[in-house]
Order: sequence, then structure tokens, then C-alpha cells
Amino acid sequence: MQVGILMGSDNDWDKINGVGKALDEFGVKWEANVMSAHRCAADVKAYVAAAPERGIKVFICAAGGAAHLAGVVASLTTHPVIAIPVETSVAGGLDSLLSMVQMPGDIPVACVGTTGIGGARNAGILAVQMLALSDLGLKKKLEDFRVELPKKIAAKNAALQERLSKK
Amino acid sequence: MQVGILMGSDNDWDKINGVGKALDEFGVKWEANVMSAHRCAADVKAYVAAAPERGIKVFICAAGGAAHLAGVVASLTTHPVIAIPVETSVAGGLDSLLSMVQMPGDIPVACVGTTGIGGARNAGILAVQMLALSDLGLKKKLEDFRVELPKKIAAKNAALQERLSKK
Amino acid sequence: MQVGILMGSDNDWDKINGVGKALDEFGVKWEANVMSAHRCAADVKAYVAAAPERGIKVFICAAGGAAHLAGVVASLTTHPVIAIPVETSVAGGLDSLLSMVQMPGDIPVACVGTTGIGGARNAGILAVQMLALSDLGLKKKLEDFRVELPKKIAAKNAALQERLSKK
Amino acid sequence: MQVGILMGSDNDWDKINGVGKALDEFGVKWEANVMSAHRCAADVKAYVAAAPERGIKVFICAAGGAAHLAGVVASLTTHPVIAIPVETSVAGGLDSLLSMVQMPGDIPVACVGTTGIGGARNAGILAVQMLALSDLGLKKKLEDFRVELPKKIAAKNAALQERLSKK
Amino acid sequence: MQVGILMGSDNDWDKINGVGKALDEFGVKWEANVMSAHRCAADVKAYVAAAPERGIKVFICAAGGAAHLAGVVASLTTHPVIAIPVETSVAGGLDSLLSMVQMPGDIPVACVGTTGIGGARNAGILAVQMLALSDLGLKKKLEDFRVELPKKIAAKNAALQERLSKK
Amino acid sequence: MQVGILMGSDNDWDKINGVGKALDEFGVKWEANVMSAHRCAADVKAYVAAAPERGIKVFICAAGGAAHLAGVVASLTTHPVIAIPVETSVAGGLDSLLSMVQMPGDIPVACVGTTGIGGARNAGILAVQMLALSDLGLKKKLEDFRVELPKKIAAKNAALQERLSKK
Amino acid sequence: MQVGILMGSDNDWDKINGVGKALDEFGVKWEANVMSAHRCAADVKAYVAAAPERGIKVFICAAGGAAHLAGVVASLTTHPVIAIPVETSVAGGLDSLLSMVQMPGDIPVACVGTTGIGGARNAGILAVQMLALSDLGLKKKLEDFRVELPKKIAAKNAALQERLSKK
Amino acid sequence: MQVGILMGSDNDWDKINGVGKALDEFGVKWEANVMSAHRCAADVKAYVAAAPERGIKVFICAAGGAAHLAGVVASLTTHPVIAIPVETSVAGGLDSLLSMVQMPGDIPVACVGTTGIGGARNAGILAVQMLALSDLGLKKKLEDFRVELPKKIAAKNAALQERLSKK
Repeated sequence: MQVGILMGSDNDWDKINGVGKALDEFGVKWEANVMSAHRCAADVKAYVAAAPERGIKVFICAAGGAAHLAGVVASLTTHPVIAIPVETSVAGGLDSLLSMVQMPGDIPVACVGTTGIGGARNAGILAVQMLALSDLGLKKKLEDFRVELPKKIAAKNAALQERLSKK
Repeated sequence: MQVGILMGSDNDWDKINGVGKALDEFGVKWEANVMSAHRCAADVKAYVAAAPERGIKVFICAAGGAAHLAGVVASLTTHPVIAIPVETSVAGGLDSLLSMVQMPGDIPVACVGTTGIGGARNAGILAVQMLALSDLGLKKKLEDFRVELPKKIAAKNAALQERLSKK
Repeated sequence: MQVGILMGSDNDWDKINGVGKALDEFGVKWEANVMSAHRCAADVKAYVAAAPERGIKVFICAAGGAAHLAGVVASLTTHPVIAIPVETSVAGGLDSLLSMVQMPGDIPVACVGTTGIGGARNAGILAVQMLALSDLGLKKKLEDFRVELPKKIAAKNAALQERLSKK
Repeated sequence: MQVGILMGSDNDWDKINGVGKALDEFGVKWEANVMSAHRCAADVKAYVAAAPERGIKVFICAAGGAAHLAGVVASLTTHPVIAIPVETSVAGGLDSLLSMVQMPGDIPVACVGTTGIGGARNAGILAVQMLALSDLGLKKKLEDFRVELPKKIAAKNAALQERLSKK
Repeated sequence: MQVGILMGSDNDWDKINGVGKALDEFGVKWEANVMSAHRCAADVKAYVAAAPERGIKVFICAAGGAAHLAGVVASLTTHPVIAIPVETSVAGGLDSLLSMVQMPGDIPVACVGTTGIGGARNAGILAVQMLALSDLGLKKKLEDFRVELPKKIAAKNAALQERLSKK
Repeated sequence: MQVGILMGSDNDWDKINGVGKALDEFGVKWEANVMSAHRCAADVKAYVAAAPERGIKVFICAAGGAAHLAGVVASLTTHPVIAIPVETSVAGGLDSLLSMVQMPGDIPVACVGTTGIGGARNAGILAVQMLALSDLGLKKKLEDFRVELPKKIAAKNAALQERLSKK
Repeated sequence: MQVGILMGSDNDWDKINGVGKALDEFGVKWEANVMSAHRCAADVKAYVAAAPERGIKVFICAAGGAAHLAGVVASLTTHPVIAIPVETSVAGGLDSLLSMVQMPGDIPVACVGTTGIGGARNAGILAVQMLALSDLGLKKKLEDFRVELPKKIAAKNAALQERLSKK
Repeated sequence: MQVGILMGSDNDWDKINGVGKALDEFGVKWEANVMSAHRCAADVKAYVAAAPERGIKVFICAAGGAAHLAGVVASLTTHPVIAIPVETSVAGGLDSLLSMVQMPGDIPVACVGTTGIGGARNAGILAVQMLALSDLGLKKKLEDFRVELPKKIAAKNAALQERLSKK
């Protein structure tokens, strides 16, 4: 296990399972748990303390509203913590975003985009980038991944051209 | 001591000292401490655990940005927690407000207005209102206070009338 | 009756009935009424004046848009008033939130999160916390409730683990 | 007296005295009072009830934050009520604006722009427009005023041309 | 005809037909037209110029997005112009609201709430209030209407009580 | 080919195909491609460099979220670049809008409205206006188009009148 | 004269004189006038009608608040209209931005960034880009300008390096 | 050199020099350059390509407005890129924040808080956390740093207590 994913509610998983898919693409092992900064603070503390022993190097936390989970995890570890703001009804998650990204000095959180924009996938890729700093195999995979990206876009473009040609 | 005031930064005191003034007007004893949900979580936990023994019944927490202090305190106690969103540069504290008020279920926080609008004073009055639920003397003071309010406004109005009459 | 719930429109009840459920869990008696700060101000005044005699100690007011109900009730009583901003189409209820939380000095309102984020449930819990300041039985229930919370999260986590194991 | 101006705080007068100047330009008599929807509700009620007897036909209410004054006045009269959102630190008065303009059905308020954009002057002109519906003399003044507006702009333009010519 | 309703798009009618219903309740004659400040400016000018001869005293303009219709109409007449911000996808109509309410000095617009909050009905009532300044019959109807409002709320409350009693 | 349309995702085409329709109405040839500022930067650079040789004079870029496509294209060409902010869940595309319109000095982008408000059509018309600066035939078509606009609105108005007459 | 600059208020000139400077750098002749869409609509109409005869090809309009000037000008011409949202107190000009950029279909406006971010300069450059579509000399200047940009940044970077080296 | 800091304007350095201070505290070598994603794209590309050879492992990019710098750098490297939204006049930097954090899939950026809230310092700490994943010495320093944090808060608290005792 290299990445520990935490989410405030089990409902969040459908919005953030892109994290797992992204990590799977790079062969990075992960685990995911429902945990609440406010409702089971002791469990969060225990989890974060024990995680590094299992190999966890990066934490990814998803939450919505007054989304404190990432900040609380960040206060309990010196490992990087990535935050995914979960889409809500208040301006599409502006509450989640601001309560995650605007962390006070000394305890940073690495915030990616809201789930509405696909932030979960990017949380996974960002974790891979961090791990790749000391893993040449992973770095190679990232570079290969980048080489493939234009091809994916090209395929989408080809589909658009076909669609346009039929009009 | 009946009210425990916590703030994320000592700079916040100048923005929230209206809390202390309000409580003083009602003769409610208070203490104020700088404490950070993220930078000294253990101290916060210890403080909140020990506070009721000293008589603390209500907590008031002021913070800015990704303002988690009130939420973290609320997760550590069953006493009411009042949150004061400290004015920031992001839309005048919209980040502080949303990260305080939008708490997840089961762990409420009682949010008052931003410091820019004078929320600190209201945090103090709200604490008094909570304490007055079981303190008839305090309830009497609140009622007297309410009787005085129209007089204060009337005095301000008199000043305006004088100002207008001179034009 | 210990808690008086007021809402600006009968349509609001479906969005805020979590208040009643939360109070029921703690055995706190409540009543709920549709009342409008603007359309039946005299009725609101009469209700608030008479409520304490029936035992009402805390008011909970839900409204949307230019949501004045909580503020008006707060101006009519020295009891604590909890405000629930009802979700609207303007940024998911930013209008309701700001017109409730940004109260002028001397007349505080205790604002919880928008109905979109589950604020109604928290309004109920917050009322219980206030009442528990002078009700040891209720305080015990709150502490028991807190002990149960991690178990609920653990159950949700177990469900997630089962779901993940099947993939 | 044809227009009654109310403001939540005597500090507001400097931000809204453009109302008085605008009314003076049209020879419309006005009075201005500091009055608070929450802190002296009985005085507001008495004032609004008595005002029509003195000739008041239109009310103008200025307030900031959770700005309920206009809505409360509107609930107490069938005369038109004009609302001026006073600039605050939260997004420059977005709180004042939303809590004034988003009134519930049946109790309208006529909202003009925030004080930061010069809304006070427009509140005065709007009141004149309402009064002119049944006052031909006032209607004539409004039409003359409109004829003068292009000249004022032309004068400003002339000043700009002179400034540009000197470069 | 006493009220002229203009809307930027025929799609808007379903969102604002509450204006017509409100005016009908008070027996105020109205007409409604689709007209665009930008796409048929000459028609708007001609309409506004001719309207008073048919008896039009108040204009009501509904538009969405960069909603200039009310402002343009206001620049063409000295009669009061009421603006209804039509709900859009940008924060539920914040674009419509700001581009209507924040008018420059000298050319006021009387803005009511967004269509999402029911602003259309209030535009109608506000027009009636303006007309009632010089129409005692209408003023009487408004006062009767106000007397009925608490009964409507009471009826809604009775429905809620029945619903609650069945639980 | 005179206009090159680029979009960040093939999903965007359904939201912006109004561009193509508008250009078709004026007989302006266009091409559309899926291209990503971040995922195939080299392809974007190659495309922009080669486009003028095929006659492309104006670029139109549509993207959502942190929408950099228009800015990146603008940095690669001296031709005008029109930006269409694609509607997202964050306040209906406020993220797309701000990340497109707020360009740093020296590299302008011509931003139109969000797709939710119909910005795509306007991007097409704006491109035509730019091309018409040196194409008298196109200028004539634009003028004819403007002459037709009031008729379209009049037709919509006629439909509304028929609808109202049936009530 | 090739570019006509219009502003809603003579106070705006200090915020937007970057337009003139940018145009001067490219040797493009311009004129600037104070004109109000609402206060002197006839003058605006006359100006826009006459401007092309003097050679004006592009209009640039700056305004704040409910900023209708650009939209009104756009409705009066088929020439491209560039809009500069002037910074205000409401969220730094979000009102100006939304009321300019969110134009209804068929009447586009080319919006650049707010004056707070330096939008005025970009309005000038964008006008040059439009004119350069049919002016090879201007196109050459734009290309030269682009070649110079990296040197300007390099000079700023050199200054930073010197500053850092002194620490 | 392990960290490469890029900023869009040399004016930004005063707002973000906290990055350098934070890195200095941990003995991490850094370099800082002014570079613009739009005005010297080729230089950015060359810089990012060459940086890893000098040892650069993490990039930190600060920019304001339509802040594309971090996204562009992220598209040019597989190393982690940290984004600092620079405070602007639009809602205190909401434009910078949204245009940085809402990145499209596959190209993540690790966003910290705005400069107004002290985001620069956190960008530095976050970079250290990433580097510490494979640097035990650095990890030790981070852990020591965390141990010191409560002491710093305690010192601030002591100062507050002294201040309060003097009242």
C-alpha cells in the first residue's frame, strides 16, 4: 500500500473512484476508507499514525461542505496530503474547495479540482507524481503516460471529425 | 470561567475582542487562548477536555481561511461551540464563513457573522443567551439589555437629527 | 415542548424534517409551525411571546432567500435562535446563508449549514447541546451519541470495504 | 414629508446622504431616522404606522449585512419600500444585496444598487419617479432632469477632451 | 392598461407569468411583450414612448444574463421600471441580478428577487403598490390583501399540523 | 477555412455547436478540432502555426474549469482568439469564465458569455464581425442579419400574444 | 481614427488609459469619449452611427456596475465591440464583468479582463489584432511586439536575480 | 537546486517570498525566476526541460488572474507542480484560485491557499514534504518542525495572556 484514500462519507466513493482507477493504471497499491475528521477523530489519528508502517506515503482525502478531513490528516502527519473538494449544492462545491485549499501556514494541503470537474482522477495522478520522485519505474510510466495523452486526444478528435463529416 | 474563547492566531484578538467586551457587560467570566487546530491539536484536545472542570460551558472559536478550529473543538466536546469567521481577503471572509458553517451532520457549530460585520460581539451575546437558559439572573440581564437597545438607537437617532438640523 | 421550529413555507418541511428526527432521537419535545416574518408578523410575535410559557427554550427557524425569519424571532426573544438556511437556486442558498448569518450586533443568530449539506440535522443537535447545559440526562445522551458516531462510520467503512473487495 | 428614510446605523448616513441630495434637487421633502429592525422593532412599527399621516408615501431603507430593515418595513406597510444595500466587507456588500432583494412572495422590496456603486442617489430618484406618477409638477421636473443629463455627460466629456489634448 | 411587461425572450414567460397573476388579483390591466434591448432597440424605444398614452404607468422588465432590458427601458422613460432577474445557470442568476440592480446614478431600476425565489410575483405586487399611491381603491385592495396573508399562512400551517399529527 | 474552432474535450461540441451554425449562416468556412492545451501542447502549437496558411484568421477556443486553451492559443498567434467558457458545476462556469477572461497584459483573449447563456452562438457572430472588417460582402450580410433580428423578436412576440389571448 | 473608446464616467479614464497607451505603441489612432448608455442614449446612437465615416472600425467600451455601455453600442453597430469591466467594490468588479460578458445571442461583445487585472491594456492589443487582420504593417508590428515580450520578461527576471543575489 | 520557483510577474515576489524562507528553514536549495506562460512560452519550456538536470524535483508556480503558469508547467513535466494563487482584486483572488485548481484530468496541479491567507509559505512546506518522501534527513527535519509548532503557538498564547492580564 502506497496511497491511503480517506473520504468523509461512503456516498463520496462514487464521486471519487477515479482516484483508484488512476492509481491502478500506474500499478500503485492503494486502500480506501470512510473516516470522519469530526465523528471518529480518534480513528483518523490511529489510522494516520499506523499507515506509514504499511507503506503509505501519500494520503488523499475527499470531503464536502466544511471539509476539514484533509486539514486534520495533514496536522497528523508530515507526509503529503492531497485534498479533493467534493461537489455540493453551494455553488457546486465552493464551500468544499475553500475549506480545503485555504489552509493556515505550516500545515499545507495539496488541493486538486472539485469532483464536478474531475478532480478525483488528478488526485491519483498527483500522488503518482509524488511517488515517482523516488521511483524511476514509476517515473518512466508517467513519461509513457504523457506520450499517450496526445494520442487519446487525437482519437477523440478523429471521432469529432467523423461526426462533423456526416452532417 | 464559563466561556472559553479560542483563536487561531494572536492577530485575531484585535478583530474579536468584542467577544470579551460583550461577556464583561453581562458579568460572564471568560478566558481566551491562542490555539491551532492544526499546529497544536494535542493542546486543543487537552484544553477542551479540561475546560468543563473549570466551569467552561460554551466554547467560542475564531479563525480565518480554511477555518477548522470550531469544527475540531466541536468534535471534542458535547458543549455548544460558537464560530466566528474572521475576515480575510477572499471575498471578505467567505472562505472562513463557508468552512465554519457548512459542518457535516452530527457535529454542529453555531456560526455568527464575520468579524467585518461585527460577528464577535454577537458571539458573546449568543453565549450569554445559552448560559441564561439555566441562569435566571443572566436571563434578567438579557431582558434589561434588550430594554436598553431601543434607547441606544434613539440616542444615535438624536445625534443624526442634530446633524441634519445643522445643514 | 422545549424546541419551537418555525419555517417560512410549508414546502420547507421536507428539507428540514431532519430537525424533528434529531430531536426525537434525544427525546426532546418539539413543535413545528409555518410562520412568515413578513406575512404574519403579528402571529410570529404572539407565538414567540407565548412559547416560553409552554416550555420552549430554543427556537429553530428555517427560511430561504432574503431569510429574515430567524432574525425577526431573535429580535423578539432572549432565548437562543438557531437558523437553517434553506437551499435555493442562487448559488445553492448563498442568499439564505448570508441573510441569516450576517446579523447586526446585539441580536445574534446561531447559524448552521444549508439544507443542501444537511444543516437541518445539525440544528436539532445544536438545540440539544444548548438544552444539555442544564440537563444532565440530556448531556449523558449526547455523550452516548458521540460514542456511537465512530461505530456508525465504521459500519459505513465496512460496507465500502465489502464493495471494494468485490471489484 | 413625502419620503421617510430609515437606516440601520448612524454610520450609514455618510454612505447614503445622496438620497437626501437627490430628493432636495426635486424639492421633495424627506426625513431621515436611525432605526433598527432588530433592536427597536416596536419603534419601527410605530414609525411606519404614523408616517403616512405626516404625508410619507415612500419609505427608503438602508442597511448592511443581514439587512432586514427594508423587509420588515415592507411587512408593516402597503406603501412602496426602496432598499439600499450598504457596502460591507463581504464581497463589497453581496450579503446586504442578497438579504434585501431576495424577498419572499407578497412582500416586495424595490432594491437599487449598493452604496459602493452609488445606489443611494438612485433610491432618491426612484422615489421621485413613484411620486411623480400622481404629481404632474414632479413629472415635469423629472423630464427636465432627463434633458439635463446629456449635458452633464457632455460637460464631463469636454473635460476629458481637454485633458487628452494636453497630453 | 396600467402596467407594461417586457421580457427578453418568449421562454421567459413561463418563469414570470406570476406577474400577470398578481396584477389580475388586483384588477390591474397589463400587457406583455417580448422585446430585446439589443435586437430590436428601435421597437423598445417606440413601445416605451407610446405606452403612457395607453395608460401605462409602470414598466416591468424581465431578462437573464447580461440583462440590460430594464436599464434601457429606464433610460427611455421617467416612469418607474421594475426589474426581474431571470434565473440562469451562473450561480442561479447572479449575472442577471447584478446586471440589473447595479445601475449607474440618475437612472434607477427597482429590482425584485430572482425568478428562482419567486421574484415575478413580487414585481406585480410592487407595481400595484406604486399605482396605489394615487388610487384609493387599489390601496384598499392592498390593505385587504395584507389582512388575508396571515390567513393563508395559517392555512398552510394547519396543513403542516395535520401532516405532523399523522406521523 | 477562415475560423479554427478548438475545444478541450469532444463532450464540449454539443455545448458549442452553435458556433458552427452561426458561421454557416454567414457562409464562413470553419473547422473544429479537439485539442488540449495541457495534454497535447505540441499539437496545439503545430496547429496554430499551420492554420493561417489554410486561411484561418480567427481562433475560437472553448474549455471548462481551469480553461487555459484560449490563453495558450493566444500566446502562439497574433490573430484574434475568442474564448467560450463552458458551463461547469462550479457556479455554472464561473471557474471557466474567470480563467479565460482575466488574461495577463499583452496577450488578450476576447471572451464571450458562458455556454449556459448561449455564448457559443455569439462567438461565431463575433468572428464574423472581425472578418467583416475587411470583407464588404460579409459586412453586408451582418447588416442584413441585424435587419432581420427585430423580425425574429416580433415573431416571438406574436406567438406570445396568441398564447396570452387564449387564456 | 480607427478605434473609438467610450467610457461611462470620466473617472474611468485613469483606470483605462492603458488602452490609449497600447494603441499608441502600435501607431493606431484613437479617440476617447465619456458617454453613457443610459444618460445620453441619443448621443451614443449618433456617435456610433457617425464613427465609421471617420474610419472607426473597432469600439472599446469601459463601464462599471450594471455595465450596459458595451452591449448598447454592440446593438447599434456591426463592428466589433470590446468590453472592459471596470473594477468596483462588489467582488472587485464581478458585477461589471457579468453584466458585460453574458450577452444574449446575436449581439456579441468581446470581453477582456477587469481593470484590476490590467484589462485595459489588453483591450487595446485586441483591437490591434482585429485591425491587423487586414493590415499587413500592423500584423508585422504585432509579430515584432511578440518577439520583444520575452525580452521584457527576461529583463524583469534579471532584476529579480539581482535582488535575490543581494540577500 | 531542488525546487524551481516561477512567478508570472516580478511584482509577485513580495507576495510569495515566504516560499523561499520556508525552503531555507529546511535547507532546501531553490531558485526563483520570473517567467510568463503566455509572454515567453518558449523560455518556460526550455526552463522546465533543463531544470531536472540541475536537480530540480518540484516546481512552484505563482500567478494571478487567469493564472495559467502552473498548468502550463505541469503540461511540460511529470514532476509535481505546486500552484500559489496570487491575491487579486476580484474577490481577493478567486480568479487566480479557480484558474489554478480546476485543472482538467491527467495534468494535476497541487494548489495551496491564496497569498492573502499565506499560501506561499505552505507551498514551500509542501515541496519539502514531497522531497522528504525519499530523504530521511528532510523527513526528520519535518518531524522536528512539527514538534516545534505547538511551542510557537504556546509563545503566542503567552503573549496574549500577558496582554489580557494588563487590561
